Amino acid sequence: MIKNGKIKVLEGMQVVRRLVLALGGNALGNSPQEQQALVKDTAKTIVDLMESGYEVAIGHGNGPQIGMINLAMDLASMHDCSMPYMPFPECGAMSQGYIGYHLQQAIRQEMKRRGIQKEVASIITQVVVREDDPAFQKPVKPIGRFYTKEEAQRQAQEKGFAFAEDSGRGYRRVVASPTPQSIVELPVVRQLVEQGNVVITVGGGGIPVIETEQGYQGVAAVIDKDKSSAKLAQDLEAEMLVILTAVEQVCIHYNKPEQTALSAMTAAQAEQYIAEGHFAPGSMLPKVEACLSFVRFNPKGKALITSLQKAKEALEGRTGTVITFS
Amino acid sequence: MIKNGKIKVLEGMQVVRRLVLALGGNALGNSPQEQQALVKDTAKTIVDLMESGYEVAIGHGNGPQIGMINLAMDLASMHDCSMPYMPFPECGAMSQGYIGYHLQQAIRQEMKRRGIQKEVASIITQVVVREDDPAFQKPVKPIGRFYTKEEAQRQAQEKGFAFAEDSGRGYRRVVASPTPQSIVELPVVRQLVEQGNVVITVGGGGIPVIETEQGYQGVAAVIDKDKSSAKLAQDLEAEMLVILTAVEQVCIHYNKPEQTALSAMTAAQAEQYIAEGHFAPGSMLPKVEACLSFVRFNPKGKALITSLQKAKEALEGRTGTVITFS
Repeated sequence: MIKNGKIKVLEGMQVVRRLVLALGGNALGNSPQEQQALVKDTAKTIVDLMESGYEVAIGHGNGPQIGMINLAMDLASMHDCSMPYMPFPECGAMSQGYIGYHLQQAIRQEMKRRGIQKEVASIITQVVVREDDPAFQKPVKPIGRFYTKEEAQRQAQEKGFAFAEDSGRGYRRVVASPTPQSIVELPVVRQLVEQGNVVITVGGGGIPVIETEQGYQGVAAVIDKDKSSAKLAQDLEAEMLVILTAVEQVCIHYNKPEQTALSAMTAAQAEQYIAEGHFAPGSMLPKVEACLSFVRFNPKGKALITSLQKAKEALEGRTGTVITFS
Repeated sequence: MIKNGKIKVLEGMQVVRRLVLALGGNALGNSPQEQQALVKDTAKTIVDLMESGYEVAIGHGNGPQIGMINLAMDLASMHDCSMPYMPFPECGAMSQGYIGYHLQQAIRQEMKRRGIQKEVASIITQVVVREDDPAFQKPVKPIGRFYTKEEAQRQAQEKGFAFAEDSGRGYRRVVASPTPQSIVELPVVRQLVEQGNVVITVGGGGIPVIETEQGYQGVAAVIDKDKSSAKLAQDLEAEMLVILTAVEQVCIHYNKPEQTALSAMTAAQAEQYIAEGHFAPGSMLPKVEACLSFVRFNPKGKALITSLQKAKEALEGRTGTVITFS
């Protein structure tokens, strides 16, 4: 076996290439029934990518899922005093189990259907953030249920939580979205990927932890799953980062008459489009930024933004938006 | 590297031996705060075992934890109609994430404190049961909240759940406790253990699934975690199965004047004690049975039942109850 960074030549001349796929939490539905149905399509796309000759590691979002779990835990502890308060990082760990279970089941079944002999595993994954990340000074991600102003003020005092008014619908707790620094379980993920397993990891961007003298410690925060997936792609020396989202291609002048879909952009072009304000914060902007960070780190790498439905076509160069360093 | 079933001789003459540890869910507490405090002691014991020269894989219970999650999800969907009903296997997957996260964090920190360079990973694990397992004909494990007779009857009709009256406190849903047949993620667990990682798996006995033409499918059931851990020990060709429980040693004539603690028993002796009714069903009996199934499968193996606090001493032969084939 010749091994050369990201490309391994195995028996015969089959070239094994490595790809990190970032799945949106919104694409996973709002209930277990929806999720179980939706992961079947997701699994088809994932196995398509495998059949194109890629080793695949999967990062996924968890917005609706951790929201549901956090809300259920809050509601339960409100209505039944025997129910403990459940911190946000623990809710994240639960969401990794919940989503990973459905994903691994669906991927296994799709592989079996196509006669592919591989294993698939979900790894409970912590991602380190810096305690002094400036994001902690301005928490922006709303989580959990809506409160009245009075309830919000009381909780803010009692628990030290931050709250923000949300579009006239009431007050919601807000947490920070810090930058991922390192993936705690990376060595395990790497071992499994190198042995040809499909690995599901950095769920919801990873359980955010800070380093303390007593070890890693969970913090209430939401790490952007595209940034964590980009970090994973860097760390695994992947050839490709694929970010699946609701649209087939990235557009400039989005939702305007002169809207133009992009089939490719270089890092320099992407930076210019960002400076010109083409990409919406909290939507396309973090995805393009995640791709940029990946191709800056690995100038030979390719990042691709497309939809789940078009992923296979996009990988064949027929649609999607490819971001390269130059 | 000479490899011989379960014993590997590595650099120098250090002998690496393999051990499966089964932790009780009750030893993990009833809230995230309790669990996070308790896993620190658990981690010390686990790292003690590693320092005695063992590769360690960990199975754990989830009784109180899945109970809490299931109850929270039920309560939430009762009080907020936007909250979906959460099936029991999905609650099990969540509990694996929740417990695995705390355990892996604590074990990692304890290893770091002692200067041990190893990785630790929690694997979301499905365990196959047979759809025609006779246990499904008589569900006995109570889960979730208490209902009135009328509520229980309505739910039984609507959802097809089984209910049983529980000690005068009301009606609870009951599910089956089928026998574990195989561990779906075993190949991944084996790879990681063979590479010297600490692996947390078969949480809560594993997420129970049946094989269907559409792949694995979760079923509402509770697999005994000691039985799943015994199966894991067999499959990993472990030298030792250690079941940690509330007592230091197994006793005959338990809670009677002639109570006697056992330091060892053979399979034949254990069978005789079982026939004589010394071990309580749902308590010590399934633990002794799990040990029996392990030593019958691996007659050179050893099973040990002891408490978390005494595990290190017991491994040195100074307490605990050792079960051997002959």
